[in-house]
Amino acid sequence: MKKTAVVLLSGGLDSATTAAIAKAEGYELVALSVDYGQRHRFELEAAEGVAQSLGIARHEHVSIDLASFGGSALTTELEVPKDRAADQMEADIPVTYVPARNTVFLSLALALAEASGSSDLFIGVNAVDYSGYPDCRPEFIEAFERTANLATKVGVEGTAAFRIHTPLIALTKAEIVRRGTELGVDYSLTHTCYDPDDAGVSCGRCDACQLRQQGFIDAGLVDPLTYQRQGESTEA
Amino acid sequence: MKKTAVVLLSGGLDSATTAAIAKAEGYELVALSVDYGQRHRFELEAAEGVAQSLGIARHEHVSIDLASFGGSALTTELEVPKDRAADQMEADIPVTYVPARNTVFLSLALALAEASGSSDLFIGVNAVDYSGYPDCRPEFIEAFERTANLATKVGVEGTAAFRIHTPLIALTKAEIVRRGTELGVDYSLTHTCYDPDDAGVSCGRCDACQLRQQGFIDAGLVDPLTYQRQGESTEA
Repeated sequence: MKKTAVVLLSGGLDSATTAAIAKAEGYELVALSVDYGQRHRFELEAAEGVAQSLGIARHEHVSIDLASFGGSALTTELEVPKDRAADQMEADIPVTYVPARNTVFLSLALALAEASGSSDLFIGVNAVDYSGYPDCRPEFIEAFERTANLATKVGVEGTAAFRIHTPLIALTKAEIVRRGTELGVDYSLTHTCYDPDDAGVSCGRCDACQLRQQGFIDAGLVDPLTYQRQGESTEA
Repeated sequence: MKKTAVVLLSGGLDSATTAAIAKAEGYELVALSVDYGQRHRFELEAAEGVAQSLGIARHEHVSIDLASFGGSALTTELEVPKDRAADQMEADIPVTYVPARNTVFLSLALALAEASGSSDLFIGVNAVDYSGYPDCRPEFIEAFERTANLATKVGVEGTAAFRIHTPLIALTKAEIVRRGTELGVDYSLTHTCYDPDDAGVSCGRCDACQLRQQGFIDAGLVDPLTYQRQGESTEA
């Protein structure tokens, strides 16, 4: 019997690539998508398409209304920053940061993993081409893994310890796109933009769109998505 | 201006006492109650009454369907154990354990705290008279606190660190009941039973009921709740 792993699947480029990597490593996947009141609801539909394309048999959905807590441009009417230069993205934590989001996501993944007898969790965090979110850093992941192994039966009964896999954490966006392309990820199914229009077309200007576009450019690959504004360097 | 604290309020005896202690320590409270698909829904109504009696101005509610994950007698049709002796409770983790529940709860409390500018969290875990749940132990709480301070802006920007307060962790149930009584907690508003009847009357036989009843007896106080079966030692 294959070992199962729980993979957090947002519907974005990173989580789709992470799921493909976990599958290539031989795990049978249980996907978990979280509706946390994000404005970019299109990513939840994208998660469906990605799960189907990867042949994931079990796909769990959880809704939590983090929007009522406030504090983020991704869940409230705060404006999503546009056209930020790369050094600005590195300099400070933007308003698109959702308080404790990855802690909440990993907790839910841990609950699902323990309930379903899995001890492997995959999350597509990345600490290279990212928006400076604190909960994407390796030291956070290590601390969470330690907590997970104290929080659960394994901490008392000494069964197989939980492991949080972060296959993208040290990759550039270009390396992520290349790896996913090798594994056959269909990036036309993914959604990345924080602030799409009503039809779901990506803005091309938020941090997420810019990092994605630059990643494809640096990888020498074509991003299958259309944008309200294409990345400028595509003209180069 | 008073410092605010987020307190996890289940509607049980422990969380009501914890909230009263936090209030007595001078915090303005933001209460968080989580509907996680628990069978003992009466505790959610109890949380309302407790919040009102403590004059808590902001009371947030979050629903997450952990029941769909399975794995616990508290969220599925598994039978809740009854009439277990104290040494049985200590010996193993019962089926009433909900996978990763306190990790999920603390993550949500952390999200709410960070979004609302609070750096103090209160949770009524107890590692003395309890059911042997791994996520009630001090080492789990310490690991979570460390994770919280890496997961959030404070980990990057160096603002006030989060602190997880567990005022009950080293108290016996009798000491908890005595402390709450001193602080004027109205225990008739609280709900403890894992398996109440349709009218919400406590069984008196599950671990939670037994620990509660014994706590009142040991404290020399009267439990204002009625039970389908009163604790036997009340007759002594």
